[in-house]
Amino acid sequence: MDAAGRTESGALPLEGITVVDLTQVVAGPFTTMMLGDLGAEVIKIEAVGRGDRSRSIQPNPAYFDSVNRNKHSVALDLKSDAGQRAAQRLIADADVFVESTKPGRAAAFNLDYETVSELNPELIYCSIVGFGRDSPYEELPAWDMLIQGMSGIMSITGEEGGEPLWSGLPSGDLIAGSYASQSVLAALYARERGRIDGEWIEVPMLDAAISWLTARAGHTFGSGDPFPRLGTHHPSIVPFGKYECADRPIIVAAGTADFWRGFCRAIDRPELLDDDRFATMDDRVDNRAELAEIVEPILRGEESDYWIDRFHAEDVPAGPIYDTKSVWDDDHVQRRALHKTMERDDRADADVIDHPVHFTALTTQLEVAPERLGESTDSILERHGYSPEEIETLREEGVLE
Amino acid sequence: MDAAGRTESGALPLEGITVVDLTQVVAGPFTTMMLGDLGAEVIKIEAVGRGDRSRSIQPNPAYFDSVNRNKHSVALDLKSDAGQRAAQRLIADADVFVESTKPGRAAAFNLDYETVSELNPELIYCSIVGFGRDSPYEELPAWDMLIQGMSGIMSITGEEGGEPLWSGLPSGDLIAGSYASQSVLAALYARERGRIDGEWIEVPMLDAAISWLTARAGHTFGSGDPFPRLGTHHPSIVPFGKYECADRPIIVAAGTADFWRGFCRAIDRPELLDDDRFATMDDRVDNRAELAEIVEPILRGEESDYWIDRFHAEDVPAGPIYDTKSVWDDDHVQRRALHKTMERDDRADADVIDHPVHFTALTTQLEVAPERLGESTDSILERHGYSPEEIETLREEGVLE
Repeated sequence: MDAAGRTESGALPLEGITVVDLTQVVAGPFTTMMLGDLGAEVIKIEAVGRGDRSRSIQPNPAYFDSVNRNKHSVALDLKSDAGQRAAQRLIADADVFVESTKPGRAAAFNLDYETVSELNPELIYCSIVGFGRDSPYEELPAWDMLIQGMSGIMSITGEEGGEPLWSGLPSGDLIAGSYASQSVLAALYARERGRIDGEWIEVPMLDAAISWLTARAGHTFGSGDPFPRLGTHHPSIVPFGKYECADRPIIVAAGTADFWRGFCRAIDRPELLDDDRFATMDDRVDNRAELAEIVEPILRGEESDYWIDRFHAEDVPAGPIYDTKSVWDDDHVQRRALHKTMERDDRADADVIDHPVHFTALTTQLEVAPERLGESTDSILERHGYSPEEIETLREEGVLE
Repeated sequence: MDAAGRTESGALPLEGITVVDLTQVVAGPFTTMMLGDLGAEVIKIEAVGRGDRSRSIQPNPAYFDSVNRNKHSVALDLKSDAGQRAAQRLIADADVFVESTKPGRAAAFNLDYETVSELNPELIYCSIVGFGRDSPYEELPAWDMLIQGMSGIMSITGEEGGEPLWSGLPSGDLIAGSYASQSVLAALYARERGRIDGEWIEVPMLDAAISWLTARAGHTFGSGDPFPRLGTHHPSIVPFGKYECADRPIIVAAGTADFWRGFCRAIDRPELLDDDRFATMDDRVDNRAELAEIVEPILRGEESDYWIDRFHAEDVPAGPIYDTKSVWDDDHVQRRALHKTMERDDRADADVIDHPVHFTALTTQLEVAPERLGESTDSILERHGYSPEEIETLREEGVLE
């Protein structure tokens, strides 16, 4: 068993499953990366010449590498008949096809559901779309930031009284990508149980993002007011949020009566427990400013590591605010070895984040390092019935690379 | 077929699957809601007297209702032997058990993996944890905001040059919840194929959140610098972000050469296409301020609806910034009927957000409205072999309600 609890002997849940992937940038590649982590063989079709658009997004190749391990790159010209036939042959042999092409594009490539489901009636076909069929915005290209704006995510992100902001994560992409992998797994399960032959799944990015409002929408439904921007505060929990220490800020989340008692012990002010102004959570919310006047100078008096140790000793949720560089040095993250490198024959190792879930009898894989454009074109096409001579001819014609 | 493309005749992917749920607040309830949407019967065990802590989070009951449809509430005292035996009997008959109890709590309830897997060797047991076994923070309670701070999510959220901020979504909770439902589906599939008997899954919230850094971490791995806070700008795409109109701001994302051409047509300034300062994306990034001086007054001169129509006519990604109230009035959201109400016999309807994914041969359900604490205690226990007399006795003893 390695540091992440991964056993060499575990079974891969999707072993034997083949996924053909016609997606790019983040949402779709995240979906097929999850399926690859779980053991599927993923064949990533990319455009000859250019490839996945993220191959040219800076920094190169780290952007692409971050969501494209466990995939075999096959470069085809889908505008050509021969390229379309090759893609159809791959999909005809596959269990799953995931695509995130523009509206109308899959049909123009003869890779729409009607066409390929005739070649492979048991196919699970998953379309990741901005808005989807029959939407007033069906034709509108969707970008993560637009989805964040239209879904309400931006409206609840920002300082109190400030402007709506982007969430730093590409949430619009990743939420859709997560629903897509979950839905493909649900369809594979239903197919295995004989409930369906094949399936066509459509994951609309906007709808997916809205569904994550959950309790934030609950606030709105309940009170009728939009959920506010809160910066690093909480409307009904004190003490809670970001606190400055001598060197850097930390997060403290004393959201229960037990945590409040631990908080007072940690800052060595047990007398606050007997102070009527702070007796209940409602009291602490009402007297937020007075409590801050007492607590903030105390926390500013020592460094963050000191306070984190003190809060942890009292079982109070507290910790540092890491950036995307310092996070890898954390004790937990180091012990889990979440940052992995994957070797590549003739170029620099790829940096990846390991699959975060721990299985027991099952396992996940980091098997195929992110590939160069077309790195597996020949081997994959040969396995699907193309002779070396046919491949050579298609290469001369510019149909593949 | 209804507005969301849901067919009455579709098969539910998880029909026949029973999930026992011992989770509360957001992460775990979101997991089991997804499984319920997909057709599983979910039995939600709650503490007698108090129930899921989110039942008392304001606004009540909207907060709880937002992640608890499609579940039957059974209220048990798990500190009592008889309550533990009842829970064990439910789990012995189930396919899946999802729990998010504090470290050591499941064992104290005799509901740890070792105990219940002996009663039910085919059980898929899923633990949602803050940090997990063998972590230096194993004992530390995890709250969404702490996970956002420690994972790097806060560090990439905020204004350029400003402070790190919370993402408005409870991302730490929902990311873990999504991995949990995906992992349970993967395990059910592997079990159906005979790869495993049962399975124990652990989903650590911190690791799950870090894995979503994806391309943001890619930036860090590539350049060695932490990914910055960007407010509503993009470091390498112009024009892109939030633009003020006469009435309110909109989002415009002109991230390709085609979109730039459409952008110039939409604002009726075709001469910008021949301006050397803005010829390529790199030029537009270099001359960002000069372009803003030209573009911003134009956009401020008309209302947002005017500009959105103009941009859409040119296929440029653009749209409003909705809040959690205005989002429900959008044409697309109305047509999808994403905001649903579920009737309840003796109290107000529940407001819910429908499952966002469209299946074809398969379907999802909105079947069981969010229940009162213990609403299904009697019916579920009777189905699992308890007589009405036994239930009456247990109720008198305070073991259930």
